[in-house]
Amino acid sequence: MENKENIVIIGCGASGGTAAQFARKTNRKSNIIILEKGKYPQYSKCGIPYVISGIIPEKNDLIEFSEEWFKKANIQLSLKTIVEKIDTKKQLIIAKKEEKRIEIKYDKLIFATGAKPFVPPIQNLKEDNKIIKGVYSLRTINDLEKILSTIKKSKKAVVIGAGFIGLETAENLYKKNIETVVIEALDHIMPNSFDIDMSKVLKEKIPKDLEILTNHLATRINKNHDKIKSIIAKNKKTNEETEIHTDFIVLATGVKPDVKLAKEAGCEIGDAGGIKVNNKSETNIKNIYAAGDCTEYYDYITAKPKTIGLGSTAVRQAIAAGINSSGGTYILPKGFLSTYTSEFFNVEIAGVGPSQKDLNEFDIVNAKYNGLSHPHYFPGGKPITIKILVDKPTGMIAGAQAIGDKAAQRINTIACAILGEMDIETFRKLETAYAPPVSPTLEAETIVCDIISKKLKKI
Amino acid sequence: MENKENIVIIGCGASGGTAAQFARKTNRKSNIIILEKGKYPQYSKCGIPYVISGIIPEKNDLIEFSEEWFKKANIQLSLKTIVEKIDTKKQLIIAKKEEKRIEIKYDKLIFATGAKPFVPPIQNLKEDNKIIKGVYSLRTINDLEKILSTIKKSKKAVVIGAGFIGLETAENLYKKNIETVVIEALDHIMPNSFDIDMSKVLKEKIPKDLEILTNHLATRINKNHDKIKSIIAKNKKTNEETEIHTDFIVLATGVKPDVKLAKEAGCEIGDAGGIKVNNKSETNIKNIYAAGDCTEYYDYITAKPKTIGLGSTAVRQAIAAGINSSGGTYILPKGFLSTYTSEFFNVEIAGVGPSQKDLNEFDIVNAKYNGLSHPHYFPGGKPITIKILVDKPTGMIAGAQAIGDKAAQRINTIACAILGEMDIETFRKLETAYAPPVSPTLEAETIVCDIISKKLKKI
Repeated sequence: MENKENIVIIGCGASGGTAAQFARKTNRKSNIIILEKGKYPQYSKCGIPYVISGIIPEKNDLIEFSEEWFKKANIQLSLKTIVEKIDTKKQLIIAKKEEKRIEIKYDKLIFATGAKPFVPPIQNLKEDNKIIKGVYSLRTINDLEKILSTIKKSKKAVVIGAGFIGLETAENLYKKNIETVVIEALDHIMPNSFDIDMSKVLKEKIPKDLEILTNHLATRINKNHDKIKSIIAKNKKTNEETEIHTDFIVLATGVKPDVKLAKEAGCEIGDAGGIKVNNKSETNIKNIYAAGDCTEYYDYITAKPKTIGLGSTAVRQAIAAGINSSGGTYILPKGFLSTYTSEFFNVEIAGVGPSQKDLNEFDIVNAKYNGLSHPHYFPGGKPITIKILVDKPTGMIAGAQAIGDKAAQRINTIACAILGEMDIETFRKLETAYAPPVSPTLEAETIVCDIISKKLKKI
Repeated sequence: MENKENIVIIGCGASGGTAAQFARKTNRKSNIIILEKGKYPQYSKCGIPYVISGIIPEKNDLIEFSEEWFKKANIQLSLKTIVEKIDTKKQLIIAKKEEKRIEIKYDKLIFATGAKPFVPPIQNLKEDNKIIKGVYSLRTINDLEKILSTIKKSKKAVVIGAGFIGLETAENLYKKNIETVVIEALDHIMPNSFDIDMSKVLKEKIPKDLEILTNHLATRINKNHDKIKSIIAKNKKTNEETEIHTDFIVLATGVKPDVKLAKEAGCEIGDAGGIKVNNKSETNIKNIYAAGDCTEYYDYITAKPKTIGLGSTAVRQAIAAGINSSGGTYILPKGFLSTYTSEFFNVEIAGVGPSQKDLNEFDIVNAKYNGLSHPHYFPGGKPITIKILVDKPTGMIAGAQAIGDKAAQRINTIACAILGEMDIETFRKLETAYAPPVSPTLEAETIVCDIISKKLKKI
């Protein structure tokens, strides 16, 4: 039974747009309204770094679904619309569109408000409580526009943070012939995703002239009149300070869920700082859902709440919010696997599940193997390094990390094994596809499992 | 407790060599003896077609493990050794090595005798009960040597059979500038693996000047003095006969398990014509195991016995035979998924499970989707076509076929879902790795699942 309910979505990022799409697929008669504060319809945040180098030629290429697309799908998209207040009793939204006040009744409300960049405490980073010119985040097309105009007159850049966004940004600046230095506070690159041994394998694939200072804190910005002159990076072990001359600085130091509106509306905010949602993307308040970077959900392995910040999980929560708010049923798994990937200098990396430091309450056994994409007798084999983490008492796979040939697809297979609650003894017997021009009889991941199986003394 | 048992393996193909390796890994003290009738140590049968074009430069490159390797691993490899009789009461093998009679006691015996080419009934194919000169199979290095010497003086070839080996051989002949025609008796290419719709997608990727006649029977060879002149292909629908001029003919019409010795020894031969083995690779006779192309085992989905003929399954049965014969434990899944792959003209293909015609006793719902390797805004996306077959009553995945970008790894993930007994509702929620330079937020396989889910009326 399809009805004419008002489904209002706040935010038109990957979550908001996807929720609207799936709400429409589920109920053809509902009124679906997206309120977006920015001036662009749904675009890819993850694609932004690639416009810097020109791999993606134009910022407008990032737009995944245009205003026309939403119109055709019978979804009302209202841009430049800032929601000010939500009255959950009257189920009423008060917003402002270009100085004009609007009131919208909702039957179902979906928060897809995303996240805001975390700004680290660096001396001289702010003036009059505003971030100074020459320091940019890289989260919106607006940020991108500023960087694109800055790099035209720049030779040097500093990126703070060596996670995904930091390294992706650094690579694209490097490819644009900007001399780039990355400063990372923790002791290895990709510190929240990769174990230190895998980080080392990855670091070897990055050109030496893209300098990365790990274990360094960015402490102070030096200015020359109105322009940035340099930044001070302090070695956390030795306290030694290095002055790095730069024309501009990109902050890639993580994000915080944007929960202001939801909190004011009475939505419960969880321990990880996001809107608490269940496996249907419902908040604690009736008829209110939330999806994407503004939420927190459980880790599949540790069962601990976490904010996720991945487009893939955002989209899946949004599918749940869109379908469930519209009379359908879509139940998410008990937690997120957090399968991730990226590519640095033509080397694919990927992983699934927590890294070893986030599994310190578990008894973990692991193994790593360097394999080849092809049988050794077939020319053109590409290297692949795979590490798998297994819970010793149960033999269940807890996580995996991969660098090299088809890393993402290999990790998808391991993610499937985790979701299927498969133990290592079952997974190692998986028949992988074999043919000399494609793959070897035993894939690297099978061999890793054999090593772990041996460690578990099961052979 | 490791002991000094005699483990004798007949055959040094992928199964025999792998069984020996894993027997050695399991028990460092046993005497492991491989009796191989040919003159080469373990080599890749699957790599043979690629020596024709020169992609693999030399026939000797096919050798995966040399005589020296086996020596170092403390495995006795006896080449040119023909087993004549097995006395299962005395556990004695009688063999002949270059006219010299040998007797070997075994504590454990492993049959890895492989398969023999099936020779179709074609008029004039044989003379004095022997296959005439100019007609070759492509299963051994010996066959390869004959073809390599033939193509030097040839311009035209006919390949009979459009399965894996047939098409791989045809492609490599084509790349060697041999004008090649493929004759296939069934109505589409890859008839035992692909459904007809997927075959059509694949056929479009094959150059038009590599002619493939489906639904044609090779009926008669015409000779000119001592040389092959042409072959007659008869259209099965119209009975029209086409004469194809050719310098030589390659038979790629499948294989039959080589069970002669095993049968004489009292091993049970199953309905599919292979040595019957259980999930430990044991035959019905005490202390006798079998692995690879000489065996039959169950299909994971249909539970029917089948011969398999894939290197991947051969190796897994051999791991089981090697470990279990040596005091370890390695239990195979209840059946084989038969995950397969190949590459034709730079297009990867792969599949898992039975094709639709082999699932005629099931109530199957399926969907197919044409996706891209990358989000549409990221340049360089490559096409991928995926088809998934689902058992309607249970929602379980029964099979899948893929053509294009990273087909094999995608199919491995689906194979993992089948092995994990995952239904389509669980699998469609798998978080696949996403990043613009690597993959889209929703992979083609996820979208196929969404379509099937809708068909199952679960949304």
